[in-house]
Amino acid sequence: MPYYIGDVIKDEKRLIARTPEKFRETGIDVRIDTRVEEIDPKARRVHLAGGETLPYDILVLGTGTKPILPGIPGEEREGVFTLKKLSDALRIKAWLKNVPCRKVIIVGAGFIGMEMSDVIRGLGIETQVFHRGTLPVNRWDPEFSKTVLAELERHQVGFVTGVEVRAVEEGKQYRLRLVTNRGEDEADMILIAVGIRPETELARRMGLPLGKNGAIRVNFSQRTPEEGVYAVGDCAESFHRVSRDWVNIPLGDIANKQGRVAGRNIGGGSAVFPGIVGSQCFKVFDLEVAATGLTEREAADSGFRPVSTLIWGNSIAGSMPGNKKLGLKLVADRATGKLLGAQAVGGAGAVSRINTLACALWSELTLDDLGWLDLAYSPPVASAWDPIHVAAQQLRRQI
Amino acid sequence: MPYYIGDVIKDEKRLIARTPEKFRETGIDVRIDTRVEEIDPKARRVHLAGGETLPYDILVLGTGTKPILPGIPGEEREGVFTLKKLSDALRIKAWLKNVPCRKVIIVGAGFIGMEMSDVIRGLGIETQVFHRGTLPVNRWDPEFSKTVLAELERHQVGFVTGVEVRAVEEGKQYRLRLVTNRGEDEADMILIAVGIRPETELARRMGLPLGKNGAIRVNFSQRTPEEGVYAVGDCAESFHRVSRDWVNIPLGDIANKQGRVAGRNIGGGSAVFPGIVGSQCFKVFDLEVAATGLTEREAADSGFRPVSTLIWGNSIAGSMPGNKKLGLKLVADRATGKLLGAQAVGGAGAVSRINTLACALWSELTLDDLGWLDLAYSPPVASAWDPIHVAAQQLRRQI
Repeated sequence: MPYYIGDVIKDEKRLIARTPEKFRETGIDVRIDTRVEEIDPKARRVHLAGGETLPYDILVLGTGTKPILPGIPGEEREGVFTLKKLSDALRIKAWLKNVPCRKVIIVGAGFIGMEMSDVIRGLGIETQVFHRGTLPVNRWDPEFSKTVLAELERHQVGFVTGVEVRAVEEGKQYRLRLVTNRGEDEADMILIAVGIRPETELARRMGLPLGKNGAIRVNFSQRTPEEGVYAVGDCAESFHRVSRDWVNIPLGDIANKQGRVAGRNIGGGSAVFPGIVGSQCFKVFDLEVAATGLTEREAADSGFRPVSTLIWGNSIAGSMPGNKKLGLKLVADRATGKLLGAQAVGGAGAVSRINTLACALWSELTLDDLGWLDLAYSPPVASAWDPIHVAAQQLRRQI
Repeated sequence: MPYYIGDVIKDEKRLIARTPEKFRETGIDVRIDTRVEEIDPKARRVHLAGGETLPYDILVLGTGTKPILPGIPGEEREGVFTLKKLSDALRIKAWLKNVPCRKVIIVGAGFIGMEMSDVIRGLGIETQVFHRGTLPVNRWDPEFSKTVLAELERHQVGFVTGVEVRAVEEGKQYRLRLVTNRGEDEADMILIAVGIRPETELARRMGLPLGKNGAIRVNFSQRTPEEGVYAVGDCAESFHRVSRDWVNIPLGDIANKQGRVAGRNIGGGSAVFPGIVGSQCFKVFDLEVAATGLTEREAADSGFRPVSTLIWGNSIAGSMPGNKKLGLKLVADRATGKLLGAQAVGGAGAVSRINTLACALWSELTLDDLGWLDLAYSPPVASAWDPIHVAAQQLRRQI
């Protein structure tokens, strides 16, 4: 009988509790609230907390990531959260509602920090983002990061720069006090969102090889070198089709795809995961922020000679109602003219362009291709010369 | 001195009149309201109406298209319009306003018919579309055409099917009366939008070869076989990268690109127009309607063995506010698994998917590629499994 050992989701116990039964009907033994202490790959046995031992023929590791904590005194206090899984979200939701929360400090200005500032500010709660650097989402060009910062400010989200956190203490006016190099600030909730790393403790103790990013090494079938052991999702590596290197980009769509590949191979079929190109996006208030491929830095590290251009265009024909400003940056290789990466920011149309360019990266298209690409044109949805054309032709002239 | 001979745009004369002067400053002699009677390619001379003759070294034909008229009595009456150029739009606008128009009949249910029904109904004017067939926009799958029809009906646009027009007469209650096989109907304006064909009269009389679509034959540099003569835009052919055939798809973005290619070659540079994949779209009320590549019929005519699937998915994650139903149809080749065409219809996201798939057609991607394509995922902008993935994997299983 196949086993599935899942996370604790206390707050939705009633809902989730039905899942194991449902699965059991189909011959799958789903265990929730169950901790795996150790895996013995030689004996092919899983040791659970509490002493039970389960045998396996095939083992799939989908252990995900764990949030990075700064390691400061008081970070374990009630009201200090990280956000990794559904149960975290449910606990935060309950805290926001029941405390009730008047003010939230978010430490970190990456995806989670941006998305949560949108959600929490949207509930009418005073929100501040404390950031180590000077601009949010530093994967993007500083010009685009400034656009994101302006969007935060437009929605009255505070943004504090150059912060080093030192301690969390009990607050006076609010529940908690965050001590930093910049002074002391109080809030009813603190969300720590300074990054994540692959959760590979069990894999490491099993002796599975990890990549330089700390994720579990797999092949294109999601198999680890250990016979009968697969790894999928945020804890595993993926092949990056542009850098030709194995990377760890923990995103839900990649995890979904790798899970399907492993499942098909385990079920007797045959599937390969052809890799990723690094597409990613988030929305913060009314702004779409998206990217694919390599940054200039990553491109140079991979041995390319990157050139880039950044333009501002229109999401649809400039004369039409509903048009939004759209920023697009392209990175290409000087030697081959191939596209290496793209970033986009705008009130609409940013993700759309990035998806088209993700397909271009997948296919190793050059700037010459992109300058003439046959995109669907109609004034209410696009310009005759799309920002993709304009940026590609402009960058082509630089080579 | 380079010449540019343009159309009459009477209604915006004051605006346009400045253009020739502006161009003259840069050394270009722009003639508007000027008719070319004949071109003598041996003598390299252009004969204008009125007797003037202009010599040329290089000639560019950008004669566009002319609307097809049904050839019925009364079609020349005041209040009967076709829509091809800016001056047509300005005349229609003036008519709608000054008559004033209480009711409009649109004959034809293609792009122009759909876009104009949106515009005219949007002005609060009673609008009816009279169509030869039973469903609008017959390039799309009947299921999608039905979605377009439902959108017309939702906005109280009448849709009359199986119509043969016979005459336009003077009306009693309204200005005009349209006589058809279905009876007699009156309106203050009739728009005839039953199609267009390339305007190639001058080219034909010059002895330039025309393709089987009636458009001027050109090479990848936009040169005709006649030394020093180029042709660009709606009057010229384009290479279709999927069917590997020369076609005539009259669209503004293609015309723009071909013009730039010709200009660069004339100016001493070097450019090739790498062809099209047939991307096209329009918006009708709140619906995006888009397509790229070949229909099943066109694919079969081009020697492929088409298979297809049509799915309904979500424009963004199904759980998010703002999600719209999105229909996507894929056509692929059974022998190679390559994508051959795509169609999409939805309240949002249709054009975005078609542009990504246009890039896939450009690159000759297979369904295996599309099933795992790395698209940007975030619930407010997309599902982890995009409709592109779902449709591609579904169609792959059919092969």
